[in-house]
Amino acid sequence: MTPDNLIPALRDIVGPAHVLTGDDCAEYESDWRQRVRGKALCVVRPGSTAEVAAVVRACSQAGASIVPQGGNTGLVEGSVPDASGKQIIVSLRRMQTVRAIDTANMTMTVDAGCVLQSLQDVASEAGMLLPLSLGAEGSCTIGGNLATNAGGTQVLRYGNARELCLGLEVVLADGQIWESLQGLRKDNTGYDLRNLFIGSEGTLGIITAATLRLYPQPAAQLTAWAALPSLQAATALLALSHRHLSAALTGFEVMSQEGLKLVDTHYPHLRVPMWRETMWCVLLEASDSESEAHARAQFEHLLETAMEDGIVTDAIIAENIRQAHDLWHIRESITLAQAAEGPNIKHDVSVPISRIPDFVAQTDAQLQALAPGLRLINFGHLGDGNLHYNVQPPAGADAAAFVAAHEAAIGDAVYQSVHRFGGSISAEHGIGSLKRDHLPHYKAPVALQLMQTIKQALDPQRLLNPGRVLADRPVRSDGAIGVAHGH
Amino acid sequence: MTPDNLIPALRDIVGPAHVLTGDDCAEYESDWRQRVRGKALCVVRPGSTAEVAAVVRACSQAGASIVPQGGNTGLVEGSVPDASGKQIIVSLRRMQTVRAIDTANMTMTVDAGCVLQSLQDVASEAGMLLPLSLGAEGSCTIGGNLATNAGGTQVLRYGNARELCLGLEVVLADGQIWESLQGLRKDNTGYDLRNLFIGSEGTLGIITAATLRLYPQPAAQLTAWAALPSLQAATALLALSHRHLSAALTGFEVMSQEGLKLVDTHYPHLRVPMWRETMWCVLLEASDSESEAHARAQFEHLLETAMEDGIVTDAIIAENIRQAHDLWHIRESITLAQAAEGPNIKHDVSVPISRIPDFVAQTDAQLQALAPGLRLINFGHLGDGNLHYNVQPPAGADAAAFVAAHEAAIGDAVYQSVHRFGGSISAEHGIGSLKRDHLPHYKAPVALQLMQTIKQALDPQRLLNPGRVLADRPVRSDGAIGVAHGH
Repeated sequence: MTPDNLIPALRDIVGPAHVLTGDDCAEYESDWRQRVRGKALCVVRPGSTAEVAAVVRACSQAGASIVPQGGNTGLVEGSVPDASGKQIIVSLRRMQTVRAIDTANMTMTVDAGCVLQSLQDVASEAGMLLPLSLGAEGSCTIGGNLATNAGGTQVLRYGNARELCLGLEVVLADGQIWESLQGLRKDNTGYDLRNLFIGSEGTLGIITAATLRLYPQPAAQLTAWAALPSLQAATALLALSHRHLSAALTGFEVMSQEGLKLVDTHYPHLRVPMWRETMWCVLLEASDSESEAHARAQFEHLLETAMEDGIVTDAIIAENIRQAHDLWHIRESITLAQAAEGPNIKHDVSVPISRIPDFVAQTDAQLQALAPGLRLINFGHLGDGNLHYNVQPPAGADAAAFVAAHEAAIGDAVYQSVHRFGGSISAEHGIGSLKRDHLPHYKAPVALQLMQTIKQALDPQRLLNPGRVLADRPVRSDGAIGVAHGH
Repeated sequence: MTPDNLIPALRDIVGPAHVLTGDDCAEYESDWRQRVRGKALCVVRPGSTAEVAAVVRACSQAGASIVPQGGNTGLVEGSVPDASGKQIIVSLRRMQTVRAIDTANMTMTVDAGCVLQSLQDVASEAGMLLPLSLGAEGSCTIGGNLATNAGGTQVLRYGNARELCLGLEVVLADGQIWESLQGLRKDNTGYDLRNLFIGSEGTLGIITAATLRLYPQPAAQLTAWAALPSLQAATALLALSHRHLSAALTGFEVMSQEGLKLVDTHYPHLRVPMWRETMWCVLLEASDSESEAHARAQFEHLLETAMEDGIVTDAIIAENIRQAHDLWHIRESITLAQAAEGPNIKHDVSVPISRIPDFVAQTDAQLQALAPGLRLINFGHLGDGNLHYNVQPPAGADAAAFVAAHEAAIGDAVYQSVHRFGGSISAEHGIGSLKRDHLPHYKAPVALQLMQTIKQALDPQRLLNPGRVLADRPVRSDGAIGVAHGH
């Protein structure tokens, strides 16, 4: 097999209709945020695990590198090809079968190309809950969710994608298939291969199917909105909520005044509550196994206690599902309001929850010193220590020019501060290409070495999503990994 | 460094008092169940992570293999040396510092040698819950719990040791230290190294410290005991309990009549409830964030519904903590009663919960055909699909002779049945040496290959706990792994 006869070979494997070339590849070649556009040799759309395996073997023989792609909704430029015109996009989107649902075992086994929302629906129709939930759920695929260890709004209670996965089917770099879809909650028979592939962003193998944990559907869900005087009060409310609600606490989102002001500016019909009078608002969600009345009584008791303690100044509990949706919609509109306001700078960081107030105070001050007048659009999953610590240029400034001038310095300042506070420069979005060259500044050299060792062992040809997560490094003839050149 | 001057070098590193030789090694050389006894070159007791690293470097230079050891309470012969007299036991028991407890972040960071029960106490004194709980908690260490991904009685709600760990400090095979003790709930910056070390039984690195998740203490815990007509009824009660109690369901243990009969025979003062009239009993535990009254109302509603549905024939709810302890004590006495009855055969298996009734019916019939009259002492964590599917020789038989004659055939029959039902031959105890040679019959070759590849990449000298989990295989000069010889 040579690169020249690779396309005919791929057509033989998946059928001519499922190998796209030229302009037909366009939608697969640029990322969700339309920040980068690459050029692929072709897009291959296998229809089965056996076809994925045959595609990988053909690419391996031809020495062609592979970019696995699900819904292509990633935010770190991890699923689009480089500009070489030589990479093969392997799209999993045709693989959409729900292979099995086992309510007694509380699991479902599904193909990687299933869209997350469709799986939520399938679980719901079976009377169960698939608790993974995030903004892109209408188009992201479960394979991509697992390859990137997606987070979202219910991590606080149910964990990341990682914690929701009991088994995987993966096509390895040599085209072999590793399968562990039994749906066992306990299995101590050797190394944890599953978690090695989860979060590896397609660089160690291609996830083709997964067995997911399901949960009982809650009897009732309630949403509350609270005004707080400070971020210290928000962490205190979080601790109080854990004590009062325990596992019934399924959402805890914090939003700064600046972020809510942007929503109010661009979407006044959303009628953002309380934002004018307070620096911080929190959206709480409770999922109750008993009844709405029980959930409401619990919430009222929690919020009354918080008001007596002075950590909440005002609060409402949604009266019905429509009101709850409206409150969530405000939270989810912050990103859209940022885009409507103009060019901006985004981060996805985490620090230990106990250190968040100090982290924010110090970093805010540093950024204001760096670029006076910038607006901090700080919001996120406080219950996980995860902030989308975003920056909007000063009101009235030339936003594009501000971003061009300051994006790198602001990013460095945020990441250095995160690092000082023992945090992570990518809480839930991953590394991809976007943060790959930042990572060595903040990750321990020994961790990067271990990752390179594992990459080299599992993908010695370095054909799986090369240059994502880790810099691609040539292999010396003695098997040791050399220094990066020209990448 | 040669083997000859290794002991002096180790004395220089940890101090002469902490290198044991000869008879002083005895308690470290045999396993918890006293089934095997090895012979070590010496026992080294480092007092710090830096000392562990220096010990590993010295051993690596001398080509001496290392057996890491915590509380030495493992059940699969994974932490004792072989008979060669050449292996070095590295005992972590001197490392017992609680490095930090952060209640706002709900984490604690602790040395590997801390005894599990002492950590439960430290968490409790800080008003938090460390939910890992198992029989050996009075002497097992957290490092060993993580190295073996320990399970226990609260996995249903809180997960295995794996799910309770947010970060590790590990000494690698080359003596480097990898540290990730930040206590982050979200960190998508590369491969999941943490989970690779957890459950690797000391074969990929030596865990020296960990950051653990803590939970709010429940306001009340209640225990119930129910009689059920069948194992089908038990899985139905499990599903009903999940729906009624959701995350408040923290324990669900099933016990067969034969097992409870043994407890009644040897410990009649424990007054086992209901066992004479029913084939199966279940012990349920609820942990409530509100109050004992609320927990009791919930439990009563659940059990009334179950009785109306015909899946429970009789039930009691413990009136107070003493009664609850007494019920748990009965459950925990099954193993002791088995020992009191005489030699027996143990298994630790899991199958998907939905398949447990059929698995037990088929396997019971096969074993009765194999050795008529044997007694099936079947009990375990039904909520996790995990059964301790144990076998007692027929009443009145020569038990030692029966075990000698039938242990291998019975084990094979159980494991083959587990395999047919998509289960695991080691749910929570691990592989160690005891099940190492069974594993290749039941684990996919591609999984074993991946494990060997990872072992080879991370421990190319194969000095860390060699021969545990994986057969030790000579390395050919081209770097490929050869076929096992003489092992």
